[in-house]
Amino acid sequence: MMDALTDSNLRGAAAFQQLHWFASGRIDATHLTHAYAAAIARENPRLNAYLALDPRMEEQAAASDARRRSGGMIGRLDGLAVAIKDNIDVSGLPTTAGLPTRRAHVAPADASVVARLRAAGAVILGKTNLDEGALGTFSANPHFGAVQNPRRAGYTAGGSSGGSAAAVAAGLCSFAIGSDTLGSVRIPASHCGVFALKPTHAEISTRGMVRGARRLDCIGILARAIEDLAVVVQVLGAHDPADPRSRRRRVPLATPDWEPGNLRSAFARDLGALGVSTEVHAVFDAAVARIGDAFGRRIDIDFNDHDLGRTRRAALLVMESELGVEFADDLADASHPLSPRLHGMLDYARRKSAVDYAAADRALDATVLKARRVFEDIDVLVLPTVSHGPYPLADGERANDADLTAFASLAGCPAVSLPMGTLPDGMPVGLQLVGRPGADLRLLELAAICAATLDSAPAYPVAP
Amino acid sequence: MMDALTDSNLRGAAAFQQLHWFASGRIDATHLTHAYAAAIARENPRLNAYLALDPRMEEQAAASDARRRSGGMIGRLDGLAVAIKDNIDVSGLPTTAGLPTRRAHVAPADASVVARLRAAGAVILGKTNLDEGALGTFSANPHFGAVQNPRRAGYTAGGSSGGSAAAVAAGLCSFAIGSDTLGSVRIPASHCGVFALKPTHAEISTRGMVRGARRLDCIGILARAIEDLAVVVQVLGAHDPADPRSRRRRVPLATPDWEPGNLRSAFARDLGALGVSTEVHAVFDAAVARIGDAFGRRIDIDFNDHDLGRTRRAALLVMESELGVEFADDLADASHPLSPRLHGMLDYARRKSAVDYAAADRALDATVLKARRVFEDIDVLVLPTVSHGPYPLADGERANDADLTAFASLAGCPAVSLPMGTLPDGMPVGLQLVGRPGADLRLLELAAICAATLDSAPAYPVAP
Repeated sequence: MMDALTDSNLRGAAAFQQLHWFASGRIDATHLTHAYAAAIARENPRLNAYLALDPRMEEQAAASDARRRSGGMIGRLDGLAVAIKDNIDVSGLPTTAGLPTRRAHVAPADASVVARLRAAGAVILGKTNLDEGALGTFSANPHFGAVQNPRRAGYTAGGSSGGSAAAVAAGLCSFAIGSDTLGSVRIPASHCGVFALKPTHAEISTRGMVRGARRLDCIGILARAIEDLAVVVQVLGAHDPADPRSRRRRVPLATPDWEPGNLRSAFARDLGALGVSTEVHAVFDAAVARIGDAFGRRIDIDFNDHDLGRTRRAALLVMESELGVEFADDLADASHPLSPRLHGMLDYARRKSAVDYAAADRALDATVLKARRVFEDIDVLVLPTVSHGPYPLADGERANDADLTAFASLAGCPAVSLPMGTLPDGMPVGLQLVGRPGADLRLLELAAICAATLDSAPAYPVAP
Repeated sequence: MMDALTDSNLRGAAAFQQLHWFASGRIDATHLTHAYAAAIARENPRLNAYLALDPRMEEQAAASDARRRSGGMIGRLDGLAVAIKDNIDVSGLPTTAGLPTRRAHVAPADASVVARLRAAGAVILGKTNLDEGALGTFSANPHFGAVQNPRRAGYTAGGSSGGSAAAVAAGLCSFAIGSDTLGSVRIPASHCGVFALKPTHAEISTRGMVRGARRLDCIGILARAIEDLAVVVQVLGAHDPADPRSRRRRVPLATPDWEPGNLRSAFARDLGALGVSTEVHAVFDAAVARIGDAFGRRIDIDFNDHDLGRTRRAALLVMESELGVEFADDLADASHPLSPRLHGMLDYARRKSAVDYAAADRALDATVLKARRVFEDIDVLVLPTVSHGPYPLADGERANDADLTAFASLAGCPAVSLPMGTLPDGMPVGLQLVGRPGADLRLLELAAICAATLDSAPAYPVAP
């Protein structure tokens, strides 16, 4: 029944397209899962995107197919095949968080987000590679090896959700789950040429995720199309009474009401001063020009005014301190030493005082207020996702990778990254849209218009 | 027109009674304010409840009277005279927070709660005495002197909102505003024989209050009747976009729906193990017996199971660390030394690491979840407010004053204290009701039934 679709057609398609094919009977979940399993076996040794596969994937796919055949109730994601970042618990599989100490830490239960995926019928394929301790933007894990950028070997896929982004880009899953504390789904989305959503803070429960910084941590989604992000966030977003940070929404999610006539889009007055490279600046200007009137009224703002440096240091101290609690046992395990880099970051937090932490946490409170004021006058902030394109792994991690993504994290705002074009070296770079808290769907609607104008989906065809 | 009411009748009345008298024209705000000013001049030198009076009180009262005479719009608290704890900003008056360094710190603007009081027509009388740095349960301020319990000189009024409670008990204001981080309105309400509400966390904005611990700090209300608490919390509770901790309510406040038939009341199985004195235990048992069926179905719980000791230490570290930020300049000011006690507490936080703070803050997250589970099976928790009655100032502060009040703070729950009877030495002690977050009005409705049964209002007549 599926002879008209090749495996690479299947794998190159958006998840919502795959759902249409399920509904019309052109494919089933077993076939899709087999296509992914075969591609992973072939390509993962090169990409290093997956750290572990779920031996129950066929069983899950068969159960999905049985649900469809029975004519009974099916989930909104039934049969789609998902990759999960390895700092998020999947029952029965280890959660390494990128640490050498945790290879045998089998999770006793699903994380909240994984349980919701299963309840919606999704098939869990496996766990994806990431930075050590999920602390980084580079995904060159010193214990598990580097994720390779699917577009060019030897180049970073970005991080810390690099394995999830590479799996999406290479057509090794329908969509992927990552985490984003200061930019960790958006940066690899930019580098791999795929789409990512960091939702409003606490919109998706982080229970069962290794926490980086509770007030910043978000579950993020990586996909081959904007439309997929909208479907998935509506399935995954919900109040979780067992997560003390989970928020009840006042409305299910802000209803899209986008109109060019009532949209106010803000642009940073001086991208150069923010460290944006000449090449990225040119791609950004061209993309914005093409999108044109769809941005509504354009407002120039001095984005640099918002004490970003100080609050980013504050966020880092909060994150390092929380990881100091989370990784206390790992740090003490001499038989599986952490990298000197991670050691150094955790030691730093031990040397800072509790008063320093309180001051940092209060500085983050102040940023939330500043962001609220910014969004009194604008609806969306438009920026590149990263100030440069993907770069060689051999160059080592750059310190400024998260400079343009941190604001949305600090402010608790939703943010989308979508491919905006190609740099002179042929590599992709992302356009970032940041909206006000709760406006996730409105932001995705604008992003869909941008993506359609730029013809940026799918990012690039998967290898046959 | 007011000849039928003596000043002590006026001062002994509940605020809602005073509003009725305003409405019927029996009194006006100028008369009420004069009655309070005269009583304060007479009694405050003995009680030490007020640290400063607002020189604009007559002007405010005259403006209220003009509003009523004009027949135009009047506020819900129009003409009532309020005392404000001296860690909350009143424009034009100093905010000392009980510190010797801040006698000249004139607040440039009203705190959020004070602005709401003014907008509702209330007259601000002045600022009330408190523990040094609002850190204590005793109100024997080493720089400004001890608040005296109005019922018995030489006895503690409780703290840290001791001045506010004493002012309410002695009939020196219509009602008073305090703050409550681990019990600071409920403890002095118990000791002074008045009523207090610590609302659901973040229900009333804390902007403009000297922060003790942002995740625990609440603005609290002290009054001569339960009904006053219900009126005032509805006026003061609101989302404040300029307070990053302020929450939007899903419903205005949970609607009272109290029925003996559907109420589940929890009682601690062993009050003695919680440190409750024999005398308080006896008063508690007698009060509970009188209230009887109004508590609905009685459920015995092991209240001690909930790691209260560990989380209280965690809360203290969070509070000391935040105060270390808040009081950094005061600590450095050698010309106005802080007490050795406060010095020691702030130094402790400097010696603990940022990782210790993160661990403490995460322990508090865990407590929120535990409390949620407790309230899955019950509607209200019934306890004494303090495990002992008021005690002599000469004995020094007791370490266990907040043992029974801390739980509601750690869990973010609303809690009420109402007088439940008299100890053998003639001093008052409070009954505490704790409800689930958001259920403030439901809790007050039950508290009103308890107060009517116990005939506990007013606490005692004011001095003529």
